[in-house]
Amino acid sequence: MKQTFKKILYGGDYNPNQWPREIWDEDMRMFQKAGINSATINVFSWAKIQPSEEVYNFSELNQIVSMLCRENYNIVFGTSTSALPAWMVKRYPEVARTDYEGRHHKFGQRHNACPNSPVYQKYVKELVTRLVKHYGDNEHVTCWHVNNEYGGECYCEKAFRVWLRKKYGTLANLNKAWNLEFWGHTVYSWDEIVLPNALSEGLEDDRTAFAGISIDYHRFMSDSMLENYKLERDTIKQYQPEALVTTNMMGTYKGLDYFKWAKEVDIVSWDNYPSYNTPWSYNAMCHDLMRGVKKMPFMLMEQTPSQQNWQPYNSLKKPGQMRAQSYQAMAHGADTIQFFQLRRSVGGCEKFHGAVIEHAGHENTRVFREVAQLGNELKKLNGYIPGSVKEAKVGIIFDWDNYWALEYTSGPHKDLKYVEQIHQYYEYFYKKNIAVNIIPTDDNFEQYDLVIAPVLYMIKEGVADALEKFVRRGGTLVTGFMSGLVDQSDNVYLSGYPGPLRSLAGVWVEEIDALAPEQKNTVAFKDGMKAGCRMLCDIIHLESAEMIAEYTSDFYSGTPSVTRNPFGEGQTYYIGTVCDEEALSKILNMAVTDAKISPVIDTETQLEITYRETDTGRLHFVINFKDEPQELPPQFAGERDLINDEVLKEGLQLKKYDVKIIFIKFA
Amino acid sequence: MKQTFKKILYGGDYNPNQWPREIWDEDMRMFQKAGINSATINVFSWAKIQPSEEVYNFSELNQIVSMLCRENYNIVFGTSTSALPAWMVKRYPEVARTDYEGRHHKFGQRHNACPNSPVYQKYVKELVTRLVKHYGDNEHVTCWHVNNEYGGECYCEKAFRVWLRKKYGTLANLNKAWNLEFWGHTVYSWDEIVLPNALSEGLEDDRTAFAGISIDYHRFMSDSMLENYKLERDTIKQYQPEALVTTNMMGTYKGLDYFKWAKEVDIVSWDNYPSYNTPWSYNAMCHDLMRGVKKMPFMLMEQTPSQQNWQPYNSLKKPGQMRAQSYQAMAHGADTIQFFQLRRSVGGCEKFHGAVIEHAGHENTRVFREVAQLGNELKKLNGYIPGSVKEAKVGIIFDWDNYWALEYTSGPHKDLKYVEQIHQYYEYFYKKNIAVNIIPTDDNFEQYDLVIAPVLYMIKEGVADALEKFVRRGGTLVTGFMSGLVDQSDNVYLSGYPGPLRSLAGVWVEEIDALAPEQKNTVAFKDGMKAGCRMLCDIIHLESAEMIAEYTSDFYSGTPSVTRNPFGEGQTYYIGTVCDEEALSKILNMAVTDAKISPVIDTETQLEITYRETDTGRLHFVINFKDEPQELPPQFAGERDLINDEVLKEGLQLKKYDVKIIFIKFA
Amino acid sequence: MKQTFKKILYGGDYNPNQWPREIWDEDMRMFQKAGINSATINVFSWAKIQPSEEVYNFSELNQIVSMLCRENYNIVFGTSTSALPAWMVKRYPEVARTDYEGRHHKFGQRHNACPNSPVYQKYVKELVTRLVKHYGDNEHVTCWHVNNEYGGECYCEKAFRVWLRKKYGTLANLNKAWNLEFWGHTVYSWDEIVLPNALSEGLEDDRTAFAGISIDYHRFMSDSMLENYKLERDTIKQYQPEALVTTNMMGTYKGLDYFKWAKEVDIVSWDNYPSYNTPWSYNAMCHDLMRGVKKMPFMLMEQTPSQQNWQPYNSLKKPGQMRAQSYQAMAHGADTIQFFQLRRSVGGCEKFHGAVIEHAGHENTRVFREVAQLGNELKKLNGYIPGSVKEAKVGIIFDWDNYWALEYTSGPHKDLKYVEQIHQYYEYFYKKNIAVNIIPTDDNFEQYDLVIAPVLYMIKEGVADALEKFVRRGGTLVTGFMSGLVDQSDNVYLSGYPGPLRSLAGVWVEEIDALAPEQKNTVAFKDGMKAGCRMLCDIIHLESAEMIAEYTSDFYSGTPSVTRNPFGEGQTYYIGTVCDEEALSKILNMAVTDAKISPVIDTETQLEITYRETDTGRLHFVINFKDEPQELPPQFAGERDLINDEVLKEGLQLKKYDVKIIFIKFA
Repeated sequence: MKQTFKKILYGGDYNPNQWPREIWDEDMRMFQKAGINSATINVFSWAKIQPSEEVYNFSELNQIVSMLCRENYNIVFGTSTSALPAWMVKRYPEVARTDYEGRHHKFGQRHNACPNSPVYQKYVKELVTRLVKHYGDNEHVTCWHVNNEYGGECYCEKAFRVWLRKKYGTLANLNKAWNLEFWGHTVYSWDEIVLPNALSEGLEDDRTAFAGISIDYHRFMSDSMLENYKLERDTIKQYQPEALVTTNMMGTYKGLDYFKWAKEVDIVSWDNYPSYNTPWSYNAMCHDLMRGVKKMPFMLMEQTPSQQNWQPYNSLKKPGQMRAQSYQAMAHGADTIQFFQLRRSVGGCEKFHGAVIEHAGHENTRVFREVAQLGNELKKLNGYIPGSVKEAKVGIIFDWDNYWALEYTSGPHKDLKYVEQIHQYYEYFYKKNIAVNIIPTDDNFEQYDLVIAPVLYMIKEGVADALEKFVRRGGTLVTGFMSGLVDQSDNVYLSGYPGPLRSLAGVWVEEIDALAPEQKNTVAFKDGMKAGCRMLCDIIHLESAEMIAEYTSDFYSGTPSVTRNPFGEGQTYYIGTVCDEEALSKILNMAVTDAKISPVIDTETQLEITYRETDTGRLHFVINFKDEPQELPPQFAGERDLINDEVLKEGLQLKKYDVKIIFIKFA
Repeated sequence: MKQTFKKILYGGDYNPNQWPREIWDEDMRMFQKAGINSATINVFSWAKIQPSEEVYNFSELNQIVSMLCRENYNIVFGTSTSALPAWMVKRYPEVARTDYEGRHHKFGQRHNACPNSPVYQKYVKELVTRLVKHYGDNEHVTCWHVNNEYGGECYCEKAFRVWLRKKYGTLANLNKAWNLEFWGHTVYSWDEIVLPNALSEGLEDDRTAFAGISIDYHRFMSDSMLENYKLERDTIKQYQPEALVTTNMMGTYKGLDYFKWAKEVDIVSWDNYPSYNTPWSYNAMCHDLMRGVKKMPFMLMEQTPSQQNWQPYNSLKKPGQMRAQSYQAMAHGADTIQFFQLRRSVGGCEKFHGAVIEHAGHENTRVFREVAQLGNELKKLNGYIPGSVKEAKVGIIFDWDNYWALEYTSGPHKDLKYVEQIHQYYEYFYKKNIAVNIIPTDDNFEQYDLVIAPVLYMIKEGVADALEKFVRRGGTLVTGFMSGLVDQSDNVYLSGYPGPLRSLAGVWVEEIDALAPEQKNTVAFKDGMKAGCRMLCDIIHLESAEMIAEYTSDFYSGTPSVTRNPFGEGQTYYIGTVCDEEALSKILNMAVTDAKISPVIDTETQLEITYRETDTGRLHFVINFKDEPQELPPQFAGERDLINDEVLKEGLQLKKYDVKIIFIKFA
Repeated sequence: MKQTFKKILYGGDYNPNQWPREIWDEDMRMFQKAGINSATINVFSWAKIQPSEEVYNFSELNQIVSMLCRENYNIVFGTSTSALPAWMVKRYPEVARTDYEGRHHKFGQRHNACPNSPVYQKYVKELVTRLVKHYGDNEHVTCWHVNNEYGGECYCEKAFRVWLRKKYGTLANLNKAWNLEFWGHTVYSWDEIVLPNALSEGLEDDRTAFAGISIDYHRFMSDSMLENYKLERDTIKQYQPEALVTTNMMGTYKGLDYFKWAKEVDIVSWDNYPSYNTPWSYNAMCHDLMRGVKKMPFMLMEQTPSQQNWQPYNSLKKPGQMRAQSYQAMAHGADTIQFFQLRRSVGGCEKFHGAVIEHAGHENTRVFREVAQLGNELKKLNGYIPGSVKEAKVGIIFDWDNYWALEYTSGPHKDLKYVEQIHQYYEYFYKKNIAVNIIPTDDNFEQYDLVIAPVLYMIKEGVADALEKFVRRGGTLVTGFMSGLVDQSDNVYLSGYPGPLRSLAGVWVEEIDALAPEQKNTVAFKDGMKAGCRMLCDIIHLESAEMIAEYTSDFYSGTPSVTRNPFGEGQTYYIGTVCDEEALSKILNMAVTDAKISPVIDTETQLEITYRETDTGRLHFVINFKDEPQELPPQFAGERDLINDEVLKEGLQLKKYDVKIIFIKFA
C-alpha cells in the first residue's frame, strides 16, 4: 500500500486575494473549526502575479503562503495558467483560441489559450519556473495543481499538420487512413489539410464528413494540451524532482483522453459536479473511471458543499447529501475531499456557487455545520484511507478513441451516446454491489474474470488478440451491437461484422437496423421472459454461438438478438440491441454466473456497499441513497462503525444518506 | 391638469411616398370619414430625402406636408434616422453595427447603425437640422418623432471604453466593480477591455462570465442611443425651443432604460403589439409602465387595426377588440390613438401587417368601419382625455438595472424572467381593479401606501434607505426572493441575504433552493389554506418577522416561506418563493388590508374598471375583456355613458369588448 | 413513343478507384449475377484525375472504363465537378463558397464551389473538355452525368448585381420591383446592392426583410448553377452533339427551379431518399414531379438498396420494400433503376450507407439477393418500359417561384410550408388512384380537365389569363387560401384578394385569419357534414360564387369557407382554409365529378394502381403498400402478371410490398 498523503486532505479552492486582508484571519479561525487542513491556491491569479509582460509580483501570494504555513496547511499550489492575462491577449492576439466556427477569440472567459501558441508556452514556462523556484522548497506545498480543467479547443491548422506529419509520415498513409479517395478529397501537400470545422467538413453539431479527421483532430487536441501540461510538469520537476504534480480532470469529459493523461500525472485529481437528477450510479462510475485511469487512489479536487451556479437548476444538496457524496467518492478511491470553494466570491459568474463560508460570512449555517461535521469525522479515517486500494474482477472498457469515433461517425442512429451506453452496463454492477474496474483497451485483461466491452466500435491494434487470449484462457466477455466495426482510422473491417470480434463472438451480423424513438422491438428469452429493446437491432447469424434471446417483431422476428459463444475455456456474450434494464440484467446475471463473480456481500440490498483495502483488512462503506430506510445487512451486525465508534445493531435501519464505515481485518 | 394636445390625436403612420400621387386624394377622403386627424410621416425616408451624400431633396415631402396642412392634420414628423441609406453604408461601412457574434453588418434591415459612429451622428445632425429649419415653423407639426423604436446593439469597443472611463475614473475602480480578480481578469489598461460578447466572455444566449460587464454594456448601449436621441432633440430645440419631441418606446423592451429616457422626451409615446395570447393584464401593465416612466399621459404611437405580420401566428383582432384595446390604452393614460399604418404597403416585410386601408383599397371593410366608429366616438371625449391623469396609492417597482442584472447573472435558475415576475404581481391588482403606478427605484415612495418590489435583486445606492424610511413612516412593502442580493455592479452584499433589506424584512435568508420545472413545494398558511410554489425557495430564518406561511416539503418543511415584519409604523412582507396565484392573492390581500388600499369600486367584478381624473371629476372606463357577459356594477347604474350618451340601466350586461365611459364629478 | 434507352438501365454509382485492383473482378462477377448492366463512374474523382493544376491523369479511369466496356456495361459518366480538389482551394481560395452567415469557406465537404467563380468555371471547362475528348467516342458511354446534386449556395455579391442588371435594366425598375421605398431602402447605384443574408436583411432562418430580394436571389442562384451545368453540357455537345446529358435532381429540393433546369437536360434523373416515415404518396408525388418537369420518363439515378447513413434514424428497408419502391418509381415514369452505391465504402461519412455489395463483401446477403431478384425481373420488362408514357387529365401546379415566395414572405403564419400544402392535395388523388401530372404555371392547361392550384400565392404574368381561358372553356379549377396575392416581385395585387383570380373564383377575401396550432375552426357542408380546419381562415364574400361550406366558429361563423363559382363552361372551387382530410376529400370529390375525372380503375381499393402506356397498350402497376393484404381488383383477374408470367386469379390477396404488372392492349 503506497500512501500519497499522510492524511486525508480536507479543504478546497481558496482565493484570499479576492478579499480584504481582515477577512483572512477570520477564514483561518473558521477553517480550523471545520477540520480543514488544506487549501488550493493561485489557480486563477496570472494577471495578478504577472501584471505585465516584464513584471512579476508575488507579494500578495507570499502573504497567503506565509499565513497557510503558519497555520500548518497542506498547500495545493496552482500554476494559474488556465486563464490568460488580458495584457497578453492584447499584445499577442495569437495566444487566444479559434473556435469550431472559425472565429478567433478575444480576451475573456478561461481555457482561452491556443495550446500550440509559442507565446503562450513561453510565458507559461517562465511563470511556472518562477513559481517553483520561489515556492518549490516550501514543505507545506503538498502538491502542484497545474492549470485547471484543461479544455477549450483551438482550431488552428499549423500545429495540426505537424502532428499529422509525425503520425502518418507520408501523405499516402494519411490519404489512406482518412480514405480521402471518398468524395475526391485526396491531398497532395501537407498544407492542403484544413481543420475539421464548420468552415470545411462540418455537417451538424461538431460532426464532419470525415469522422477519421475529426477523431485525429481530437487526439491532436488532447495531445496538444497534454504537451502543455507536460511542459509545466517538467518545469516543476526540473527544480523539484520529488514534487507531486496533478491537474484536475472532469470524469467523462469528452475532449481529453484521460488514460493517456493519467500516465503523466503523479496522482489523478478530479472535479465532481453532478446535476440534481444525476443517478448515484453515474457518480460512482465517474469515480471508478478516475480511479481506473491510473489504477490508484485519486484526489477529489472539487465538489460544491451546497449548490452550483452554472446548471439550469441549481438545487441545494439536502442535509447529509454532501457528506454521503463525499464518502461515496472515498469509497471509490478518493484520498482527499476538497471543495470549490472555501469562501463564496462576491462577484463574477460563480458568485452563486456554494462555498464552505457563505456570503453571510459566519459559521452559523447548515452548510458550514455539515462541512465541519465531515471534517471532524475524517480525522478518524486517516489511518485507513490514504493509499488503500480496491481490486475488482470485473473490468468495463472505457476508451476515448471509441467515444470520439462512435459519436463522430455518420449513422446509423443519431441518439447513440457513448457514455450513456457504458453507464447502462455499469449500473447493473452498481445495483448488485459488484466491484468494477473501469479499464482501457490496452489493459491486461487477464487480471479480470469478466470483461464488459459495450459499443467497442473501434478495435485498435492488438485489442482483438488480447480479448481472444483472455476468453480462451477462461474469461467471460460481454460485447454487442456497434462493436468490431472500424479500425483506428474509422475504416470498416471488411470481414463481416463484428470484424475482428467475429470468431470470438461466434456470430455474423448481416445488417444493423435503426429504430426511431417511437419504435420498439422485444427480446424474448428461452424461459419465456420478454423485455423491450430499442434504437439499434443487429440482424445476427449464429456461427458458433448459441441463441440466448430472439427478436419478436419485424422481419427479423425469431432471429437471435442475444447470443453466447463458448470460446476456449471461456465464453463471449453478444448483445445485439439496446436492451431495457430487465433484459440486460438477465443477460449479465448469466455472464456473472459464468465468470463466478461475487458481489461485495451476498445479501441483496438497495444500499450501496463498496470497499477499499489496506494491507490488513477491508474497509466497507455502507451508504443509503434511497428515499426509504434500508436495513443493515446482517453481515455487518455486531461490527463497529468507525465514524461513530459504535457497534452496529442487527436490524438497524439506515435513513437516506446514512453512512456506516466498517473495517474487517483479513482472516 | 396640463394638456399636451388640444384634442385626442387619431391617426397613424402614413407613407404616401410609397404610393402614386392619385392615391393620396382617396386617402384624404377616407381618413376624413374615419375621423382621422393626425398623420405620422417621414419615419423611413432618409434614402428618399437624401439620395446621396451631397443632395437633399424634400420635394415629395413638401407635397405631403402641403396636403396634410391643407386638410388640417396634426403632423407627427419623423426624422427618418432609424434606417441608414444604402449609399452611406457603401461609402462608410463603419456606420453599420457589429452584432453579439462579432460580425460587422452590411446594409440592410433597420436599426442598423452603430450609435457611436461619428459619421452616423454627423449625418443625423445634418438631416435633422435641415428638416427642422424647413418644417419647424409649420403650425401643423404637432410633434417630432425622433428615429423609430431605438434598438439594435452595436458591439464596438472604443466608445465603451470611453464610457467606462467616464463612469469609473480609474482602472482600480473598474477592476473592483467588476470583481476582475475573479478568474484573473484584472486589466491594467483601458484598451485591454473587450466587449462582453460571443468572442470574449460569452456563456450562452447573451449571458457572459461577468454579469457586471454585461450590465454595464447594456447601460452604455442604452446611453449611447439616448445620446443619439438627444442629439436629434437638441438640434430640433435649437431652432424650435417649444417643439414637442418624442421617440416611440416599446413597453418592457429590455434594451433601453426607459426611466432614464423619459427624462429626455417631452411626452412618452409607445407601440403596443400584443400577441394573440397576451393577457389583458399584461397590456395594462405596459400602459402603466409607459405612463409611469414619465408620470404623465402618453401617446399610443402605434398599434395595428387588425393583425401583424411578424408574429408566429398573426391572428385577426376580433370585432370590437381594437376598440376595446384602444380604450384600455386611454384608460391607462393614452392621449392619442395611432395606428401602424394608415394604408397597407404593397411590398416589403410588412405587407401583411394590418392597416386602416387594406389592400382592397376601399372603406367597405370591417377594419375600416371599426376604425371609423372609434374615430367618431373619440370626438366626444376630447373634453375629458388630453391631460387627465391617474393617481394610485400602490407602486410597483420596475427597474432596467434589475431586469438586466437578474437575467445576466449566472444561477440559480435559468427560467427566472424579470418581466414575468413583475407581471405576476401586477396581475393581482389588475384583477382587483386596484389602481397601480409602475415606479422606478428612485421614486419618492412616500406618495404610496403600498410598494411592491418583486425580485429587487440589485439594490442601488439610496434605495434601501428610502424603502426603510417609507415603511418606518407607515408604508407597507412587499418584496421577496432574489431581492437585496447585489449592488449596482452585481457584487453581493455580504451582510446575509437579503442584504440591505434584511432589517426591513426581519428575516435572514440562509440558502436559496432551485427547483427543476417538474419539482414543486407548497406554501401552507395558518388558516389551513395551501397552495403550490415553485422555481426558487428561500430558506428563511425569522429575525423580527412573523411567519405567514410555511413550506410543507423537503428538508425545509415547516420553515417560513412567507413572512411579515412590523417595522416602524409600517410592515414588510417577504415572499420567499414563486407562489401560485391563489397563494399570492392571499398574501397581497393582507398587504392591501394593512395598507388600507381600496379598489376603484368596492364591488367585485370581472370587468376592467379604471379611471383618469380631470380637474373636476373622475372618468371611469368599464371594459369587458371576458368571454362571458358581465353585469354593470350597481354604482354606475343611472350614470351616463359618454360614448353613446345614454343613461346606464341597472343590471345592464356588458358583452365581450363592450366599453362604457362614465364621468363622475368630484363631490 | 420515344425511347431514350434500349433497355432498362440497372446499376448505380461505382467507385472502384476506392478499392484495390483485386476487388474489381469480384465486383464484375457479382454484378453480373445481379443483372446489373450499368455503372455510374467518375462522380467524385476530380482530385484523382487532376492531381495538380498542370497534371491530368486518366490512367486509373482508363482501366475502369476498359473493364466496364469489356463487360458490356452502359456507362453513366460523371464529370467529377461537384467536389473541388484541395489543391484548387489552397491556390485559389476564391473558388470556395460563402455561406448565409457571410463566412467564406475553406476546403471540405462537396458542393463547395462558388458557381460564379471564373477560376472554378475555367477548370470545370478544361476538365470536361479533356474527359469528353478522351471518352466521348466510347459507345458504352450511354449518358453523361454532370456534376452531382447541384446545391450549396454562395453569397457573393458581384455576380448577383450583374444578374439583376440584366433582369431589371434600370435601378428604377429594381427599386420598384423590390418596393425599396419601404424602410427607406432605395438604392442609387448597382453596387449598393448587398446579399439577402444574415449580415444584411436577415430576419430568422433564411427569411429577410424583403422577400422580393430573397426570391430574386434564389432565382439567381438557381440560374448560376444552371449556367454551370450548361457550361459542362455545351462542352460535351461541342465534341459529342448526340450525347445524352443529365444531372441528378432531388425531387422537391427548394434551391433549384427544376422546371427551368429540365429544359436543359436531355433526360431528367433524380435521387430518391425517403425517410423511414415518408408517406408513399409523397414518394409518388416526387416521381410525378420529376416526370412532370420534362413530361417524359426519367432516370431513377440513386436510391439505397437498404439504408442511409445521414438521416437521424437510418432504418433498414424491409424485405420487398426496395423492390416495391423501385416498381413505384417505374410506375410513375422511371426508365432506370440505379443505386447509390454498388459497393459500400470503407471510410468517410457514407460508410454506413447501404450498397449492393455490403461490407461483408459477398453475395450471401438479403440485400444482394433482393437486388439480384429485381435485376432479373427487370429483364422481362425491357420491351414495355423504356419510353412508355403516362398521360393524366388532372394537373397539380408546382412552382418554385411560389415555393420561395410563400416561404420567404413574412406572415401570416410561420408553419405554412409549400410542399406540405401541395402534398395534401396530391394525396387525395393518390388514394383514389387518379392519375396526376405535376405541372408548371406556364403549362398549357387545356390538356387537363381539372387543374389544382393550391397556395398559388404568386401569380406571374399570363397565368391568370391562362387559367381563366381554361375554366371558361369548361375546365375545373381548385384553388384557395394564400392564392392570387402577389406578382412576380412579391408585391401585392391591389384589386382585393385573390387579386387576378378574383373574378375566376367569384369571391372577395376581405381578411385572412391566422390560427395558432392549438386553435381550430370547422367547415360545415350543406348536407350537415362537418370537419376540422386550421392554420389560416379566409374571410370570404361571395361575389358570383356559391357557398359550399361555412365556418362554425369565431366571428366569421356562418360565412363561407369553401365556394364554387361557375365561370364560362367550367367552374372554380375556392377553399379558404387548411381542411382536414375528410373535408378536403369531400370538396375534391365534387371537383372530380364536375370535371368528369375517372380513376385508373373504378374499383375502390387501397392498392396503389398506376399505369404507363406504350404505343400498343397500357401497363398497369398494382402495388400493396399497406400492412394488411389487399384483394386484387376484379378487373385484373384473368390477366397475366408480367413478372411471374402467371395468370392472376380472382380474389388474389396481395401481401405488403407485393407487385403485379399487367399489360392490357388498347382495344
